[in-house]
Amino acid sequence: MAGGSGTRFWPASRAHRPKQLLPLGGGTESLLAATVARIAPIVPTERTLVVTAAVLADATRRELPSLPAENLLAEPSPRNTAPCIGWATRTILARDPEAIIAVLPSDQHVDDPAGLRASMQSALEVAKVRALATIGIRPTRPDTGFGYIETGGFVPEVDGAHEVSRFVEKPDAARAREYLASGRFLWNSGMFFFRARAMDEAIRAHLPELARGLDAMIGDAAVREVFPALPSISIDYGVVERVGATPGQVGVVPGDFGWSDVGSWESAWELAAKDDAGNALPEGAIAVDARRNLVRLEGSARGKQVALVGVEDLVVVETDDALLVLPRGRAQDVRAVVEALKAKGRNDLL
Amino acid sequence: MAGGSGTRFWPASRAHRPKQLLPLGGGTESLLAATVARIAPIVPTERTLVVTAAVLADATRRELPSLPAENLLAEPSPRNTAPCIGWATRTILARDPEAIIAVLPSDQHVDDPAGLRASMQSALEVAKVRALATIGIRPTRPDTGFGYIETGGFVPEVDGAHEVSRFVEKPDAARAREYLASGRFLWNSGMFFFRARAMDEAIRAHLPELARGLDAMIGDAAVREVFPALPSISIDYGVVERVGATPGQVGVVPGDFGWSDVGSWESAWELAAKDDAGNALPEGAIAVDARRNLVRLEGSARGKQVALVGVEDLVVVETDDALLVLPRGRAQDVRAVVEALKAKGRNDLL
Repeated sequence: MAGGSGTRFWPASRAHRPKQLLPLGGGTESLLAATVARIAPIVPTERTLVVTAAVLADATRRELPSLPAENLLAEPSPRNTAPCIGWATRTILARDPEAIIAVLPSDQHVDDPAGLRASMQSALEVAKVRALATIGIRPTRPDTGFGYIETGGFVPEVDGAHEVSRFVEKPDAARAREYLASGRFLWNSGMFFFRARAMDEAIRAHLPELARGLDAMIGDAAVREVFPALPSISIDYGVVERVGATPGQVGVVPGDFGWSDVGSWESAWELAAKDDAGNALPEGAIAVDARRNLVRLEGSARGKQVALVGVEDLVVVETDDALLVLPRGRAQDVRAVVEALKAKGRNDLL
Repeated sequence: MAGGSGTRFWPASRAHRPKQLLPLGGGTESLLAATVARIAPIVPTERTLVVTAAVLADATRRELPSLPAENLLAEPSPRNTAPCIGWATRTILARDPEAIIAVLPSDQHVDDPAGLRASMQSALEVAKVRALATIGIRPTRPDTGFGYIETGGFVPEVDGAHEVSRFVEKPDAARAREYLASGRFLWNSGMFFFRARAMDEAIRAHLPELARGLDAMIGDAAVREVFPALPSISIDYGVVERVGATPGQVGVVPGDFGWSDVGSWESAWELAAKDDAGNALPEGAIAVDARRNLVRLEGSARGKQVALVGVEDLVVVETDDALLVLPRGRAQDVRAVVEALKAKGRNDLL
């Protein structure tokens, strides 16, 4: 899934250059390219489908030169994740009715790719014996920014896998602390695993309007006509939680592979290569008595001489047309800037 | 005097674009252009001479389109202020042997130009009855960055003017507090006033080597040959203090016209137009919960959308090739960056 837009990495991320196309994982590779490369040992790129927005199709192809042309699905307009996954599932079913599918967000980072692949292989095993499987991330802090999964008993067929007892929405701080302390809760990673046929059935059962739309989407013209009218609904709310309401339908594999959803400039700093003083700076930057700062130069700003003196815990991002400065601890407040730009009608900067 | 180079406004100031050519006084005019305009009511531009470095001659002419070509003196190499003033004095003497000269630095700011002109007119009166006159700034804080002038009795011929009792070098903090408390000390502004003939005599008496060099400097070729070999010495040390060693030779007019030597990015912030939160930002900037910051965009960086969130008391300066971030209170530490660039051999950035 590579259709996301988003504002949390403004000014580097823009409508035409969203987060998954940016190298935010600490290297020079975009999050999308890193995601495809990371799973290639178990899902060859010839069998990887990328679903993105039509406006991002060209940029996405450039990012993935080895992706076969027919493996890129371009959504005419954004309809959330259920139509995205529904369309991909139908496309895969037509190629291989026995396929088992792994759905992965394209804008996450993983420190230990081998660990991720091991968890994926367990989850694909679970998908053979359950309607759905997911990977839940072992929480390391009482984060209120994620949905949680409560684990139940073991899935007997797959070592280490659990039944999902329930999915819960983003909790408040007190509840997040309880969840962490209980040891029974995992973060919802947004990764799903299923037999193509099982998902098709689940969509027919729980989202019949979507199923009818997908039935009509034969050929590019039909996609352009029908897709924009599909119900805009998430796979979590529309399918996963509804299937999971019946006990024994959904399994979860606990994962522990240095996962990050790369949610803000704060995470980008965490993932970046840093000097001894904790600064993540462009090559050749001068830092005098400066600590734990992130400076990113994009576009024509690349190559500028950066000099920091006596500043700490700042994020500084410069692009062709914008310059952002804020404390790392307020990385979420980039939203306030984006809102202000919207209010001023500066869509050229979004 | 417009020959200064300097590093305190890096990255905006460069070897080829020093402080006096930058608009650091709060408006859009360079400090040099503002200086010439400020005194024009009493010293018309046709009688204003500008002495600058040969490498800055073109930029200086562009900054002062109404300056007659013959009023720009271009020094082949920097030799401090005594050769600069000596050359200008000889040039003026040749045009008008009775001239009285006002020497002004070109990189200062004045809030109250009429007040400055009134003080200048008093100082020019003092210059008629003394070997030298100067304007001393009434101190507003125990600054250790300026030389001080101790005042003696009144100059009877000019209302409000004092004899200079002595010139003192930049004091330490304790002494600066004493000077301020005493009420008898003024800051040395670097402005001097004298009859052209009196200065010529003073140079012959105290800097005979300089006088001989000036005698030989007839014609452009001679300037190019002789000027670089003149003794490099300041007018303060070489002439003013020596003349002032004899009582009754130097008078001073106390000045109180919102003077600033524009010594650092901190002063630039003080002089700049600011919003209600004390931010001096480019037009259209977005400031969310941000206070008392200075952001300057130069060259191709102009017009960028600036966004500040939750930061206070920062200086951010961006040029075509550099980006500086430091707290306002550490503005002096720009020097550390310049030293680091020199050490790396990055003269292209200086």
